[in-house]
Amino acid sequence: MNEQDRRVFEGMFAPRVIALVGASSDENKHTSRPQRSLRRHGYGGKIVPINPKRDEIFGDRAYPSLLEVPDTIDHAFIMVPAAAVPEAIEQCIERGVPVATIYADGFAEAGPEGRRRQEELVARAREGGVRILGPNCSGVLSTRPSSALSVNAAIEQLDIKPGPLAVISQSGSMTGGLLSRGLGRGVGFSKVVSIGNESDLTVGEITDWLVDDPETGTILLFLETIRDAPRLASAARRAIEAGKPVIAYKLGRSAVGRSLAASHTGAMAGSAEVSDAFFRAHGILRIDNLETMFELPALLAGRRPSERHRVAVMSTTGGGAATVVDRLGSMEVEVVPPSEAVVSSLADKGIDIPRGPLTDLTHAGTRADVYGAVLDQLVASDHCDLVLAIAGSSAQFQPEISAGPLVQAGKQGKPLAAFFAPHAPEALERLSKAAVAGFRTPESCADAIRAWSQWRFPSAAPESDHAALAAVASAVAGLNGRRPNELDSAGIFAALGIPTASAIVVRESDSAADSVNEFPVVAKVLSADVPHKTDAGGVVLGIRNTDELTQAIDRIRGNVATRHPTAKIDGVLVQKMESGLAEVILGFRRDPEVGPVVVLGIGGILAELYRDIAVRIAPVGIEEARSMVAQVKGLAVVRGYRGLPLGDTEALAQAVVSMSQLADDPQAGIAEAEINPLLVLPDGEGVVAVDGLVICSPRS
Amino acid sequence: MNEQDRRVFEGMFAPRVIALVGASSDENKHTSRPQRSLRRHGYGGKIVPINPKRDEIFGDRAYPSLLEVPDTIDHAFIMVPAAAVPEAIEQCIERGVPVATIYADGFAEAGPEGRRRQEELVARAREGGVRILGPNCSGVLSTRPSSALSVNAAIEQLDIKPGPLAVISQSGSMTGGLLSRGLGRGVGFSKVVSIGNESDLTVGEITDWLVDDPETGTILLFLETIRDAPRLASAARRAIEAGKPVIAYKLGRSAVGRSLAASHTGAMAGSAEVSDAFFRAHGILRIDNLETMFELPALLAGRRPSERHRVAVMSTTGGGAATVVDRLGSMEVEVVPPSEAVVSSLADKGIDIPRGPLTDLTHAGTRADVYGAVLDQLVASDHCDLVLAIAGSSAQFQPEISAGPLVQAGKQGKPLAAFFAPHAPEALERLSKAAVAGFRTPESCADAIRAWSQWRFPSAAPESDHAALAAVASAVAGLNGRRPNELDSAGIFAALGIPTASAIVVRESDSAADSVNEFPVVAKVLSADVPHKTDAGGVVLGIRNTDELTQAIDRIRGNVATRHPTAKIDGVLVQKMESGLAEVILGFRRDPEVGPVVVLGIGGILAELYRDIAVRIAPVGIEEARSMVAQVKGLAVVRGYRGLPLGDTEALAQAVVSMSQLADDPQAGIAEAEINPLLVLPDGEGVVAVDGLVICSPRS
Repeated sequence: MNEQDRRVFEGMFAPRVIALVGASSDENKHTSRPQRSLRRHGYGGKIVPINPKRDEIFGDRAYPSLLEVPDTIDHAFIMVPAAAVPEAIEQCIERGVPVATIYADGFAEAGPEGRRRQEELVARAREGGVRILGPNCSGVLSTRPSSALSVNAAIEQLDIKPGPLAVISQSGSMTGGLLSRGLGRGVGFSKVVSIGNESDLTVGEITDWLVDDPETGTILLFLETIRDAPRLASAARRAIEAGKPVIAYKLGRSAVGRSLAASHTGAMAGSAEVSDAFFRAHGILRIDNLETMFELPALLAGRRPSERHRVAVMSTTGGGAATVVDRLGSMEVEVVPPSEAVVSSLADKGIDIPRGPLTDLTHAGTRADVYGAVLDQLVASDHCDLVLAIAGSSAQFQPEISAGPLVQAGKQGKPLAAFFAPHAPEALERLSKAAVAGFRTPESCADAIRAWSQWRFPSAAPESDHAALAAVASAVAGLNGRRPNELDSAGIFAALGIPTASAIVVRESDSAADSVNEFPVVAKVLSADVPHKTDAGGVVLGIRNTDELTQAIDRIRGNVATRHPTAKIDGVLVQKMESGLAEVILGFRRDPEVGPVVVLGIGGILAELYRDIAVRIAPVGIEEARSMVAQVKGLAVVRGYRGLPLGDTEALAQAVVSMSQLADDPQAGIAEAEINPLLVLPDGEGVVAVDGLVICSPRS
Repeated sequence: MNEQDRRVFEGMFAPRVIALVGASSDENKHTSRPQRSLRRHGYGGKIVPINPKRDEIFGDRAYPSLLEVPDTIDHAFIMVPAAAVPEAIEQCIERGVPVATIYADGFAEAGPEGRRRQEELVARAREGGVRILGPNCSGVLSTRPSSALSVNAAIEQLDIKPGPLAVISQSGSMTGGLLSRGLGRGVGFSKVVSIGNESDLTVGEITDWLVDDPETGTILLFLETIRDAPRLASAARRAIEAGKPVIAYKLGRSAVGRSLAASHTGAMAGSAEVSDAFFRAHGILRIDNLETMFELPALLAGRRPSERHRVAVMSTTGGGAATVVDRLGSMEVEVVPPSEAVVSSLADKGIDIPRGPLTDLTHAGTRADVYGAVLDQLVASDHCDLVLAIAGSSAQFQPEISAGPLVQAGKQGKPLAAFFAPHAPEALERLSKAAVAGFRTPESCADAIRAWSQWRFPSAAPESDHAALAAVASAVAGLNGRRPNELDSAGIFAALGIPTASAIVVRESDSAADSVNEFPVVAKVLSADVPHKTDAGGVVLGIRNTDELTQAIDRIRGNVATRHPTAKIDGVLVQKMESGLAEVILGFRRDPEVGPVVVLGIGGILAELYRDIAVRIAPVGIEEARSMVAQVKGLAVVRGYRGLPLGDTEALAQAVVSMSQLADDPQAGIAEAEINPLLVLPDGEGVVAVDGLVICSPRS
């Protein structure tokens, strides 16, 4: 953090002087709340209300504008309407205020006009050296030192316990709810930031700073979109190195959810697959249940991702355990039976446990010595990487039987998760105090263990293939701004190292017959102006000889001339008929939310009907590409399913790697590329691109 | 309920004299608990401990056996080890005890030997007129009159509030947990039954009785399997008529979950699709989240299924609302914007609301008059069938703003669900007291609304097609016990009214060439002994003329003779090559858990890879069959997707109806039937069965 950032960070979280621009003396107004909130939570600095109509508000000396304030102002909370905000920012610039938080809405979330106003405001603030939090921001809270600078009613009224959780929320109205839920679970907070429209300060930048904040142990993100992907990515990578997990709850998994996010914050929210790819790439844990936000941190605190993810489960209630284990099964989490060493070591102590995936102690296990002995063995054994301990009624009425051993076992260092079948608030509180992860619902427990099991170190960026990229750049340059047709596109794929079907082009003047001597072939119109070749009558399949080829070329030319009279026709592409064991779609694009992504999907219409695709942030290395091949369900047909012949999945993974290299093109010459279909040939024979298209980036 | 059932029901839930066989005087033993538990909860009847070593236990006169007890015994709770249970049952028979509850395990759940012991026990009890609850049962609880007859520690220690919820649980150890969770949510209970191994009394029979229990309003089932499908089905149908919703939480959605259920109760648990089909057919609400069990009943109490399921959503926190609405979107619940009438009526009151799917009042709506006015309009409007109201921090600190109007609106009769973004126990308690459905987590809230939206009246059984069934019976009879080959199977499908591909059979002695005059054809070995024809080299496709046909027949005969030397060959089937717009698999089978089911899946290996199937309890009517056609994702290709030609989906639905008729065959002559593939032809041209097989039931 440089000196300028340090001033902004301290202005946000440890301000000595806060100016409240537009502070109201009417207790019923939101704009009167920050003063009460700051005081109630023991803010130790100076509060300066700015209100031209008052000399004093709630005991603090008020000033007509920032310009009259005698002190150095660390943070200005601007609560005037949108129209008056620019003037307030001018005053911040003049007074050298490092950071201004803007409460007003009516900016980017309100449409194009608001977006323009926001852009102007930020441009002016940047020029003047003022950082902006918001607009559309309800405030920012810090517990050590205390600074509850917020219009949020909950933040005013809650008893806020300091602790290791920091929250950054894109929903201002949820900051209170999140804080309240966490406090209700016994966890404490370091910082809570309503990030608003992220016109200047973003989730990524705040996350980056929080990595260096000694008060913060885990960073929780409540997201509707991802606005500053590169900064968030690098922050998340630093966080994982620092042992500070970043946990994201992201809305927009459904179409209606995405439309809400758009209307709510003016943000374009992409598909869940794309944001999941982003979280995966950068070691962010994505959770599905709201409660998991506050129950998962204890499982992860100070940890880094595990190498393996084998879960051992013990319980005194079979039915209670099944409520979690059944879900873990659906989520493909690996549940392992106890090792023989564990079984025999317990047998030596007179404790017989079953050998199945669930160590069910039944009633007989509701004794602290039995429960504790089994738990200690599992936690100490290297056959598992996490222990899930479940207890029944004893958790409610005899917490010493289950919570006691859990608190002890929690000190041994292995991830430990506890679920209690009954309503057992006291036992959960014991765990919470001992920083052992206790879960209130089977769903949150399973969600947390799933998130832990999918948590990986961020993948290292693969080496750029400079030769391939140079070849691509040269091919793109050679187009001279012309849109690439299918043949140009094939040339670019070939430059990347992806095999393409051999083809010749029959130009206007050529005689078709002479140059083709291997049949059957397919003939396709070659034109950047005919995107849907088949619909235009521009494709003939299964041509068996020279005569048929001549006829096909004539027919194609006729069809296209009729249906696309203005299209520039570059010729007819004659390609060997290829067939493979499977067809896939391999694509590259620059996503507005997360940047370059590579997508592998099963071919035909199945990818869409079954959403059978794998998405990753590009570029990817070979390991990640293999994981994509493994993820596409329809590719089972080339992975040895039901005795079918194996396809060349390794060549397919290599093609994914090659395609993803486009992300590293320093010129970003290619905006989108798609091979459809790419055929997977038998094992050892590679893959072959049969059709595809490249879309170049607009030239600057 | 007949007189005998009445005695059993009263013996279970309102016993005047309870015998505790094997009652212990050692307070540390489970078997000492029922006495304490009964007393603590104010049991008003007589307790008779049976223990040959004591004259008195905890102040109750004890007897050496049931035979010495002077009173008429209404319920015997047998807590002796498995080996001693038969003797205790003999004594019950001798004393005319109507119902005996057996705590011991070591019966059907312990393997074949235990199953045999259980069967003998039940046979003897039936003969002697004693009904059995269990074995492997932890007890049974009633609140009015109070009878807490259980070894469960939680049941002893909880303060149990009477109320309308009845619980039947296949997990004994979870009964305490379920009760505890419900009580923690402020709900009360009428009856709680640990159903154990269901050797005699089943979930279905108890459910049936509870329909007539005036103390019970909603019946909650915690299930690992379905053991008595017909009785549960008829009970659920009676319950829906009585306005008593039946809500099921069923384990076994994953393979590991099913294996736990098997080891836990000795039950075979089928796939989630099959049990979902059962619940759907009989109007049982299936829920996914444990908490939903206790939060959903208030939404349903006294209701029957709605005709339509449009959900209106209002909130003071956009982010908080999105946590629920995003999930509803993923679950395909229809969220509707306010009607123009609602918008303008509110505008008349000076309240402007947005026209989108979320009525977000923002901060401005955190006033009781605004919140209440909007809520009242939505509840009164007929553009929606359920109102989901969400509130932010006001729910925690000013419950009168949100909980107050909700309590009022709850009286208007429309289903009303509330979710509070913060931790808001007081507001939730207010709702609970007013019987308004309040939800603690967005997940449980969405799960409940999804369950409500999928809740349908049980489908009426379609009319049996007696002529078709007679034709099928005659075809089956004609087999004279022979296993049907493909041709026989086709005959049976044709008898059901399903079109089949025309075919001729070339017998050993025939000349193939003469009788076939339309090419191309396919030739297939005809034999009930060659199940995998293709693998055996028994299929040749694309035969273009008589010569090729002769060669193909020779090749097939040669291949099969080599690979299946002992198979009886009935000839070679020569069939016209058919092609359709889509291929499906249509199957019928008698499921061990739920009985006859009909299954429609996309053809090829996709049904398995993508689990793209629709399952229903058979028989189905045309409406239900259409819903299956709509459910199979891969059938999008014949439903007008991307301008593809329409297939004859109506003929497909009719084929599903016809296949499902096999369930009504009074002889149950057919155990399983599968058409694979059934081709869907263009709209108006029907469907055609190309291959398939019937498996007859073993003859009795």
